[in-house]
Formats: sequence, structure tokens, C-alpha cells
Amino acid sequence: MFNFRKVLSVGLFFLIVTPINAFEYLQPLPDQPIFPKNNPQTAQKIALGKQLFFDKRLSLNGDVNCNSCHNLAAGGDDDGAVFHMRNRNIKRSAPSLWNVAHLSTYFWDARAKSLEAQAEEHLFDPNIMNMANADLLNSRLTAIPGYRTAFKQAFTDQQISVKNVTHALAAFQRTLVAPDSRFDQYIKGKKSALNEKEKRGLALFKDKGCLSCHFGRNFAGPAPGPALKMGDAFYELMPTIRGSIYEDKYNFLDDLGLFHVTLDPEHKLMWKVPSLRNVADTAPYFHNGVVNDLHEAVRVMDRVQFNYGTSEEEVDDIVAFLKTLTGVYPAITLPRLPETEGSSLITH
Amino acid sequence: MFNFRKVLSVGLFFLIVTPINAFEYLQPLPDQPIFPKNNPQTAQKIALGKQLFFDKRLSLNGDVNCNSCHNLAAGGDDDGAVFHMRNRNIKRSAPSLWNVAHLSTYFWDARAKSLEAQAEEHLFDPNIMNMANADLLNSRLTAIPGYRTAFKQAFTDQQISVKNVTHALAAFQRTLVAPDSRFDQYIKGKKSALNEKEKRGLALFKDKGCLSCHFGRNFAGPAPGPALKMGDAFYELMPTIRGSIYEDKYNFLDDLGLFHVTLDPEHKLMWKVPSLRNVADTAPYFHNGVVNDLHEAVRVMDRVQFNYGTSEEEVDDIVAFLKTLTGVYPAITLPRLPETEGSSLITH
Repeated sequence: MFNFRKVLSVGLFFLIVTPINAFEYLQPLPDQPIFPKNNPQTAQKIALGKQLFFDKRLSLNGDVNCNSCHNLAAGGDDDGAVFHMRNRNIKRSAPSLWNVAHLSTYFWDARAKSLEAQAEEHLFDPNIMNMANADLLNSRLTAIPGYRTAFKQAFTDQQISVKNVTHALAAFQRTLVAPDSRFDQYIKGKKSALNEKEKRGLALFKDKGCLSCHFGRNFAGPAPGPALKMGDAFYELMPTIRGSIYEDKYNFLDDLGLFHVTLDPEHKLMWKVPSLRNVADTAPYFHNGVVNDLHEAVRVMDRVQFNYGTSEEEVDDIVAFLKTLTGVYPAITLPRLPETEGSSLITH
Repeated sequence: MFNFRKVLSVGLFFLIVTPINAFEYLQPLPDQPIFPKNNPQTAQKIALGKQLFFDKRLSLNGDVNCNSCHNLAAGGDDDGAVFHMRNRNIKRSAPSLWNVAHLSTYFWDARAKSLEAQAEEHLFDPNIMNMANADLLNSRLTAIPGYRTAFKQAFTDQQISVKNVTHALAAFQRTLVAPDSRFDQYIKGKKSALNEKEKRGLALFKDKGCLSCHFGRNFAGPAPGPALKMGDAFYELMPTIRGSIYEDKYNFLDDLGLFHVTLDPEHKLMWKVPSLRNVADTAPYFHNGVVNDLHEAVRVMDRVQFNYGTSEEEVDDIVAFLKTLTGVYPAITLPRLPETEGSSLITH
């Protein structure tokens, strides 16, 4: 895996001209995300993906759906530090799905580069949906008449397959966009959208270097698409400054991030840069969800990434700015799930 | 507790005149349920109740909401036999909430006589929402600014209280009506709404005596309201015929129903009569969810309540009729849950 961060750190990115402003520091949320060419949006696919998103039958025991951890009635995440359903052993906090189409890497360790790949892992992860294999998933969905029809209509190959399930789920998730935050209004020119405190917070956010990782449309690094062809992932070291009081307090050395995937020592403590959009609605914070308070999260980042010792007043200004990143969540109508009349596929 | 069934069994009910046709055997779903005088419907209360219904913060660990077991994207129940979340020990299947306003008794053992009472038990049941006490519930909701405003607007006493929480939840649930099943169309005069097979099934359902318990607007006994003033519950013996092969096969003697509440020997194996509306969408069947197939459920009832030995052809006709009881589910928009900006109330 290519370490995109290093490329950035030598400033090469200033030379890159891209049509999508992937590297512009402060950007409004664009009207549309970048849709991958291999999975174009269609109304049928989105509707099917929404049904699958809310359908617990995608989990082996029928006890969870995507929305169980990524709650679209709220911040697109769950409120807990880590997910604590029966027999599940999850060590990382569920990130928000709002604006997920504007991310270029997925999972806390940045190991997936598409929503489709992320969905596929979730389906078969024994700690999440726990489907044993593709045959089991396909046969379960094939037993539901409404899905047989829906897959036929949504895909040219008309098949119920893992590929099509993940494509439908990703297509639906790409509609989960929460635009028009006060920050967006501000950056588009409405200077009154932020008050003085929030503007001070934004200035501090820039001046202190937070933007060096939390940049772009999603405050999470480069946008998906052509820009990423030069590398294959974007991730950062956290903590950068070692030995702070927070390291032990919040167990930041217990999980080594991307290293667990690649076993490359250079990937120890490398993490995806999480989006800061809607961050006020996505507590608790960090990969292990160990920090419940946004002020404390800012203090932690100040200490473990920069070691400045930012004042409490400045922390409060930065938090005020971060709260302006909350967008307007669209209304979501619950889908009707296709039934198996007179019987259930969940038999235990 | 007065055994309403006994009153019925001596035919007294023929003498009763009620304005709501509580005892008419075959009824369409009325346009409106009967709203209790002490909890009138208001738009604010319903909107608040919907938020609470979808809010996992009503459970101690933040892991379940009402919709977790009573899935409004589907049959209003869960697909499993019994609910199997972490640390939960639930022995009875989650019943559907569709048309619940048309029921007069709640819980499988008929121990609650209002949706409000049912909701209150759920909140504090260690196996369900597990809120330790009223103070904990009230303080958690009070910590959410949006709820402080919403309770003020919805209730004249403006308080966040267990009573108001249950009143809001009940008001929302009373909107969960799925009208216009093919049976409703038929009983209102559109004779072509049922085909010949379904009509045979209906005739069998009447002739064999299923209607003696599964009567009324909800195929579940008398409607709520004035009629029930004469008694205080409606429940029936199941199994009535003892010693059938199904008794052991499906563990029908393991749970003694209302007896566990009252310890009155006359209440052994007494159960609420479950609604048959939308029954095709609410598998698996019976209080223990042990029967997954609607045909088998009909075979069981035939044997343990009547011991007729109904033929497979007749069972199939009855199932065909039961499938006509599926109503039209209204679209439900997910509520936006009020946030606690920059922190979470779920801290474990």
C-alpha cells in the first residue's frame, strides 16, 4: 500500500491540477458526490439498496440491519462507543454514514477504497452481519419474492449476487448527503452564517494545522475519484506526538490501526482521517469511541498531534466552529420490506 | 381479574347493545380506533411519540428502540421466534403493532389493558428497555434539549415524566393502522375482492368456530372502550384440547400464560387472543414463536382447540383467507432524533 501521506508531506500536491478540487483545503459540500463509473445511480438500485439497508435478514440471526449501528434517524452512527449486541466483539466505533459518498477511504484503518468493498466486508464479518458465505446470502434473498423482482429490475444481469447486493447498498448510501451546513453557507459567501466566535474557531482550525489532514469537501482528506489514482489510500499517524497523558488514558496504543491489516511496521497507528462534518452529532469520538466530549476530543488532538497546549478558550472556539459543520439531514421514508408470506426466514 | 370469557361462553353477550359493534363477528377495520379519553391524539404528542419510538436512548444501554422488535418497515414485529439481543432473556414472541389501537388487551397474557400501561412495563423491564427507575428515564430525556421543548409543547403539565412518555408512545402507536385489506373490501361489499378459494376459507373460518375467539374488527375479541367495562380482560384457554401431539412438539405447557401474573389456577394456559390481521406478515406464530409456518399454525389450532382433524385442502383454504387480512401499510418517515451536541448519553 502506497503511503499517500508522505507524498502530501513533501508538498507535491501543490503541483497537481485536478478538475475536482480534491486538494482544496476549505470546500463546500458539492451538489453531487462523485459516482463510480462501475456503479451508476438508478432509482431502482437506490430503492433496493434502501430496503437492504433496513432489512435485518441480511444478518445471519436477523438481529441487526445496517441502520442498527448507522442510525439515519440521528447522526448516521450509533450513540455508543462500540457496538454491543449479542455475541459481538467490535472494537471500533461505528462511523457516520452521512456524506459517506464524499469519502475516499473506508473503515477506521482506511483498508477499503469503495463503499462496495466496505459493504461486502460487513456482510461476512462474523462480528457484524455474520453471513457465512455468498451462497447463504444469495439463497436467503432468493427466498424473498419481492427481492427476486427487485434485483431483476435493478441490474442488467438480473441476478441476486453479493456484487449486486453491495452495489445496491452503496448506491443507497451515496444518497445520504446532509448539505447546507452553516459552514457551507459561509464558504459560499454568506459571511453572516458564522458568528465571531465560530469565525475565530475556523481561523484557529486553519492556523493550527488541523486542515493539513482534515481538508476538502468532507474535512477528511482528498475526495474520491481521479485524484486518488496517484496513491491508493489516505491515512495519517495518530498519535503523532508520543508520550502524552492521553495515550494511556484513552488506550491509543491498544489498537495499531492499518498495521493489523498490512503488518507493515510503517502502518502502525495509521488511521483514516475521519470526516468532521456533523461531528457534533457523532459522539463518542475516535476509533475506540473512548472520548465522549467534543471539547475533550479537541484537547486530545491538540496534544497528541501538535503538542501546542491550546487554551480552553481556543478549544471552545474550535468546538463552536465544528458545530457549524452540521448539515441539513434529508427526510427518509422507511422502506417496506418484502415479506415471505406465512413464514419467516429467521428460524431461531 | 374477571374472566370475561366465561361471560361470553354463557351467551350473555348477545344481550349487550353497544354503539361500537364490539361483538359483531365480522367487521371491517373502522376508519378510526377508539381513542381513550385520558390521552387524546394531538399532532405534537404523536410526533414526540414517534421520536421516542425510534430512540435507542430509551433503553439503558442504548442498544434497542421499540422498532428493534416491532419493525414498522415490515409486519410490526420481528422475524425471530423470541428476541435475542445481548443479555436479554425473552420467552415470548414480539407481537405486531399494526392496528394495535384496535386491541383491548396487551401482552400475550392479556395482563395490560392499555397501550400506556404496556409501554410503561416495557421501559422498566430488565429484559427490554431496562431503565432502572423513573428518575433515570426522566433525567436522560431531560438532558436532551429537543425533548425538553417537545414535552413542553405536547403536554399541558409540560413535564418529562413516565406518564407523558407512555402517553406519547401510545399516541404514536395509535396511528399505526393498516386498512383496506382485501377482506375489508369484501366485507364492505366488494364481493370480487376475494376469490373462490379465499371465500371457502372464510366460510370454514366461520363454520369451524375460529370466530368464537378471533372475532371483531381485529379478529382478536372485543374492541377497546365501553364494552369492556363489564369485564376487565379478554383471554382464552390454549390448548383447550389436551394431549395432542402438538403439546409436546411445540412446548405449549412450558408457559402457563396469565397464571404467572395472577397465580390463579383458573388462569393456567389463558392467553390473549392475538389479532389475525396481517398474520401472513407476522411469522413465526404463537406466544413462543415456535411455529414458523402459517399452514402449520392452522393445523395446530384445529387440533388443540377443536380436535376436528381438518383436511389439508381446508387448511390451505383457511390460509388463503388469512392472507387476505393483510392491510395497506402507510408510509412512515423516520423521525429526526434530537441530539446532545458534542456528547453522547450512552457512555458504555
